[in-house]
Amino acid sequence: MTDNRLHELRSQIDEINFKLLELLNARARVVTEISTVQTELGTSFYDPSREGQMLTQLESANEGPFSNETIKALFREIFRASLAMQEKQAKARIMVERKSPDERTVISMPDGYTIGAGDFRVIAGSCAVESMAQMDEVGAALAARGIRLMRGMAYKPRTSPYDFQGMGEAGLKIARQVADKYKMYVVSEIMDLSQLTVMQDYVDVFWVGARNMQNSFLLKALGQQRKPVILKRGFGSTLEEFLYAAEYIVSSGNPNVMLIERGIRTFERWTRATLDVGGVAVLKLESHLPVIIDISHSAGRRDIAIPLARVAAVSGADGLMVEVHPNPPVAMSDAKQQLSIAEFNAMMDAVEALAPMSSSHKG
Amino acid sequence: MTDNRLHELRSQIDEINFKLLELLNARARVVTEISTVQTELGTSFYDPSREGQMLTQLESANEGPFSNETIKALFREIFRASLAMQEKQAKARIMVERKSPDERTVISMPDGYTIGAGDFRVIAGSCAVESMAQMDEVGAALAARGIRLMRGMAYKPRTSPYDFQGMGEAGLKIARQVADKYKMYVVSEIMDLSQLTVMQDYVDVFWVGARNMQNSFLLKALGQQRKPVILKRGFGSTLEEFLYAAEYIVSSGNPNVMLIERGIRTFERWTRATLDVGGVAVLKLESHLPVIIDISHSAGRRDIAIPLARVAAVSGADGLMVEVHPNPPVAMSDAKQQLSIAEFNAMMDAVEALAPMSSSHKG
Amino acid sequence: MTDNRLHELRSQIDEINFKLLELLNARARVVTEISTVQTELGTSFYDPSREGQMLTQLESANEGPFSNETIKALFREIFRASLAMQEKQAKARIMVERKSPDERTVISMPDGYTIGAGDFRVIAGSCAVESMAQMDEVGAALAARGIRLMRGMAYKPRTSPYDFQGMGEAGLKIARQVADKYKMYVVSEIMDLSQLTVMQDYVDVFWVGARNMQNSFLLKALGQQRKPVILKRGFGSTLEEFLYAAEYIVSSGNPNVMLIERGIRTFERWTRATLDVGGVAVLKLESHLPVIIDISHSAGRRDIAIPLARVAAVSGADGLMVEVHPNPPVAMSDAKQQLSIAEFNAMMDAVEALAPMSSSHKG
Amino acid sequence: MTDNRLHELRSQIDEINFKLLELLNARARVVTEISTVQTELGTSFYDPSREGQMLTQLESANEGPFSNETIKALFREIFRASLAMQEKQAKARIMVERKSPDERTVISMPDGYTIGAGDFRVIAGSCAVESMAQMDEVGAALAARGIRLMRGMAYKPRTSPYDFQGMGEAGLKIARQVADKYKMYVVSEIMDLSQLTVMQDYVDVFWVGARNMQNSFLLKALGQQRKPVILKRGFGSTLEEFLYAAEYIVSSGNPNVMLIERGIRTFERWTRATLDVGGVAVLKLESHLPVIIDISHSAGRRDIAIPLARVAAVSGADGLMVEVHPNPPVAMSDAKQQLSIAEFNAMMDAVEALAPMSSSHKG
Repeated sequence: MTDNRLHELRSQIDEINFKLLELLNARARVVTEISTVQTELGTSFYDPSREGQMLTQLESANEGPFSNETIKALFREIFRASLAMQEKQAKARIMVERKSPDERTVISMPDGYTIGAGDFRVIAGSCAVESMAQMDEVGAALAARGIRLMRGMAYKPRTSPYDFQGMGEAGLKIARQVADKYKMYVVSEIMDLSQLTVMQDYVDVFWVGARNMQNSFLLKALGQQRKPVILKRGFGSTLEEFLYAAEYIVSSGNPNVMLIERGIRTFERWTRATLDVGGVAVLKLESHLPVIIDISHSAGRRDIAIPLARVAAVSGADGLMVEVHPNPPVAMSDAKQQLSIAEFNAMMDAVEALAPMSSSHKG
Repeated sequence: MTDNRLHELRSQIDEINFKLLELLNARARVVTEISTVQTELGTSFYDPSREGQMLTQLESANEGPFSNETIKALFREIFRASLAMQEKQAKARIMVERKSPDERTVISMPDGYTIGAGDFRVIAGSCAVESMAQMDEVGAALAARGIRLMRGMAYKPRTSPYDFQGMGEAGLKIARQVADKYKMYVVSEIMDLSQLTVMQDYVDVFWVGARNMQNSFLLKALGQQRKPVILKRGFGSTLEEFLYAAEYIVSSGNPNVMLIERGIRTFERWTRATLDVGGVAVLKLESHLPVIIDISHSAGRRDIAIPLARVAAVSGADGLMVEVHPNPPVAMSDAKQQLSIAEFNAMMDAVEALAPMSSSHKG
Repeated sequence: MTDNRLHELRSQIDEINFKLLELLNARARVVTEISTVQTELGTSFYDPSREGQMLTQLESANEGPFSNETIKALFREIFRASLAMQEKQAKARIMVERKSPDERTVISMPDGYTIGAGDFRVIAGSCAVESMAQMDEVGAALAARGIRLMRGMAYKPRTSPYDFQGMGEAGLKIARQVADKYKMYVVSEIMDLSQLTVMQDYVDVFWVGARNMQNSFLLKALGQQRKPVILKRGFGSTLEEFLYAAEYIVSSGNPNVMLIERGIRTFERWTRATLDVGGVAVLKLESHLPVIIDISHSAGRRDIAIPLARVAAVSGADGLMVEVHPNPPVAMSDAKQQLSIAEFNAMMDAVEALAPMSSSHKG
Repeated sequence: MTDNRLHELRSQIDEINFKLLELLNARARVVTEISTVQTELGTSFYDPSREGQMLTQLESANEGPFSNETIKALFREIFRASLAMQEKQAKARIMVERKSPDERTVISMPDGYTIGAGDFRVIAGSCAVESMAQMDEVGAALAARGIRLMRGMAYKPRTSPYDFQGMGEAGLKIARQVADKYKMYVVSEIMDLSQLTVMQDYVDVFWVGARNMQNSFLLKALGQQRKPVILKRGFGSTLEEFLYAAEYIVSSGNPNVMLIERGIRTFERWTRATLDVGGVAVLKLESHLPVIIDISHSAGRRDIAIPLARVAAVSGADGLMVEVHPNPPVAMSDAKQQLSIAEFNAMMDAVEALAPMSSSHKG
């Protein structure tokens, strides 16, 4: 008896559902027309005062059993869906979002070396340019393992104004010379758009540090030139914010953006940060941009470099970034986490055992 | 011209809105009937497979312009609203939730001393019972300031099995003697329900520590006796989880629960934890239970005790908890954060200048 | 000239260093003798009031240039080092700590199936026992892939007292029957030591959930029986606390403990928790216990199960844990993260491509 | 007997302690001399390779009972103490650090209105300049309560490039006009140093947002002009990083810096961020700079504005910041957290009941 009654009530629900569906789509059609008019008028789709009026009207008309609060919540969802549809119709969706499972951004360097095309890439080098001798020693070691993207950091963002701030243009010159000698590309951090001109002469790939992830002026300036950009996730930034930061660059005109996950800040103190490897998997689902895992800053310690490199190699990421120094204990920064050359070679052996790598410049 | 058109389109939207409102409430009425049937049948309101069927039907029927994804999202909101209504109708709402702005739980001790009735209360005492001499010295100091609720911790949950685990029943005896001497109540931590019997003889208020906040066996056991319970927020627990933990106690039969906020774990290291004072304000909005602020464990340092005590006094909380030791540097636990007796007196002066306090018992 | 002076001063430093070294070791020798006396007297090594006296004496005697604060800080380090040495001498070091790179705990099940011996292990099964049909369907699927350790959860710790709390003993019976049918072992969560007796009849491996990681009563009880224990990291717990929690079990007599990393709580919301894969690498350095990666609760979403399984397979962990349900959308808990059987099979393919696995019960 | 022996051994320890004290200070004296030489030579105090050599020497010489590891740890502490002493001696300490309990930075506006001198200050205004009507309505309401520092935000840092980015210079003009009309000062966010010139004409106090807290180029530029700067703590930044960011400004020449705490990111979701009120207390201990509490962004909800304002008023902070909008539900940003004018007035009543406020300008 009650079972029959339940069946009957459920049929009523089904019927109402279909009527709701019809009405929602009718509403969506009117909204589409409104979009056209608004575009002509040049007014914004989002009109909170109009929304406020509609909600007030509905509250007055509501006789329950849904509470006013529930009714308002449901209509706010409907407004949001309408607005989302308008925005989707009116302009391209978020550019960094992956629209199909096989969409991928492939970054090509001048000689055809690619990032994001399937080969697993290693970006390596010392935390900072300290001297020609140091850079040359590291450069030779990197070249011997087929590395093509070398860190050549000449401007160091530091917590304290009294810490070593990098060698500046002198450092860029050293990085350029070493890179040329070993047929590598210079990856170097830009901290302010005022540095763009001087860096253009020396740098092949611009690096935006964690502290600057949401520096929209810098991001837009990098979007208006064509060299690839490596964008680092802020240590306190969500994945959503990370993708929007990339969108600032891409929507300004430069599609050549790589994302680099470097660990987020948590309560755990045995590592410097907590590498968000699940976040990397999510980024690869959500976006077509190449993703790199920074195994140095996330760990803050060299003794877990090999397991982290192995993890990076199979995680779906397009590459990893690692710091290498001829003599880590005396490095001017990041002494605890830079690998010695021997440690770097051991790490490369581990990566090569797992990931397809090709150092050739054409392939 | 376009303005007129816009006006016209908006009238169409208004009309559709009212039809949607009507349909949504019609649906809610049928759902209410379904609830009655389901209660008779003893089946759960939540029926994900039925929801799955409805979504599939709607997807098949959908002709746009809303995408299937949008339609499913909107109907999921409708399902959620319906379920929420059912749950609200069918059973009492969460018991610890405040239903009206002036609802409050007042905890009365045997002699009429209250917590939660408006006076600001201070719970104080050493981190752990260490000796009769220590407890007596602290007890005298507390009594001199009108404190009625004294920490008498005899079982200490410790990170390491090799750390001091408390004096056990011997400690409870000391706490009881000192409390009796100074007409105070013993507040003491219970770590497992197997301790309940022995503790009943010595303890006036049970304390559940942060590590046990979600120990549902312990919570339910404390819900089946009548002595007040102080429930501490886990350092990694959300406010929602905190309230549900209290619900375990209250729904088991004991309404005399106080909540204690003791700071949550974050990346910041200059304090031991981050006191969530905004969370206290939210708890006071959401729940009728008394809320206490622990100024010792949240800070982990005694040098900010006075500003934190001032903050607690005006935050809307019903009291604060502070650790006091005759000689903090030699305390067996929490040496950095316990106040000396002089520091405690200074703190009390600061609190009394801001908050209404009354130490007198009723009778 | 200044260079010579620098050289000379550095020689003076070297000389002082050697004298300091000598004195520190002389001090350590006296401390060792004191340990012997204290052990005879049965008093604690840690004597904070004695430390307080020594610091006061040193402060009075200090004439700089080191400030009193610095002197006290240095002597506190010396005290700490002495205490550490005493503790190390007097009792075994932390038992869960790895003393040599090749030390490993291998857990052997009755038929010789091992965890921690090198083969990568998969623990799998539904979040909760819901019915015989569900368990049998999952059990068959697991057995087909050589899984030997099956989740058979009959007591579910839930945030809300109104959520499904598990089937209890009826669920244990189902789990046992299914496990026997498919020659698997039952892994099941224990929430309170009062459940130990009833569970002994059905369960092969005890599981301690994240909320109970620091429930020392439960840990000690599990240390006093011999079945293996899987200990889950609390979502707000540090690695140090995690290892000490394991120490509670091991120091109580049961060496058969596995650690399971399940993600920690952070600000990121696109995954349910943040899998601490760097933490896993550190655990493998610090401890000899097997470590398992929970790819279900850390992600809270099934669409990244394959990359996380791949990561687990090469991370140095000894296995992974994954939730599998015949029909995830209607599961009574964890609906978003349980894999369907097809998804589970795809995940197994991915793992088998990377990790040495052997399902045979002897080897 | 053993008691006598213990006494005797303790005397030996005391004797060794005094010798250690003497040696440590002798070492510190030599280090002081080395500092002088190094300053002449222009070399860095920190010389990790020298430290490495000393540790290697000590390891070779160590015969125990202290392990090499312990000896190295103790000497590293000694090296650290020496380095700290050198840094303290050689250059001014960190400029933003408070050197004595009564040191305070007082910021004076042109007409003598002060921040940091003891009166509690309220900075208020809408999240963004949206129109003259909106700004005028808010301006009038603020002026009526004696507010002197008005938000006039014309450049909005936004997560998405498609969100409202502020009115730009047109917004600055409106803010200036309204501020002049009501005798208030304009507080406005600067996002890049390229905006400095145009903003100089309209703005009285520069605001650096959370996303730019570590933008050292911007900080240094603001240090080279004299208008006051409000520096906001990054949501993922430690207090130490916060103070160093302020140091970038102060060490570049501008002492007029206020710190603003706006909540940090944690796992808790019932508030937008977690207000670090303990951090405010620590900042007031560590630094002489004025500290302001942002009760809007920390909460992200208006319904706890009054308790948070009360907390701010007694926390030791020098003021609070609150967002006010004539019609919050239709605000173009931060709709959930801006107060209506009526809510603002209620908040002001609460603050005035607790904190000394004086709106009168000096003259």
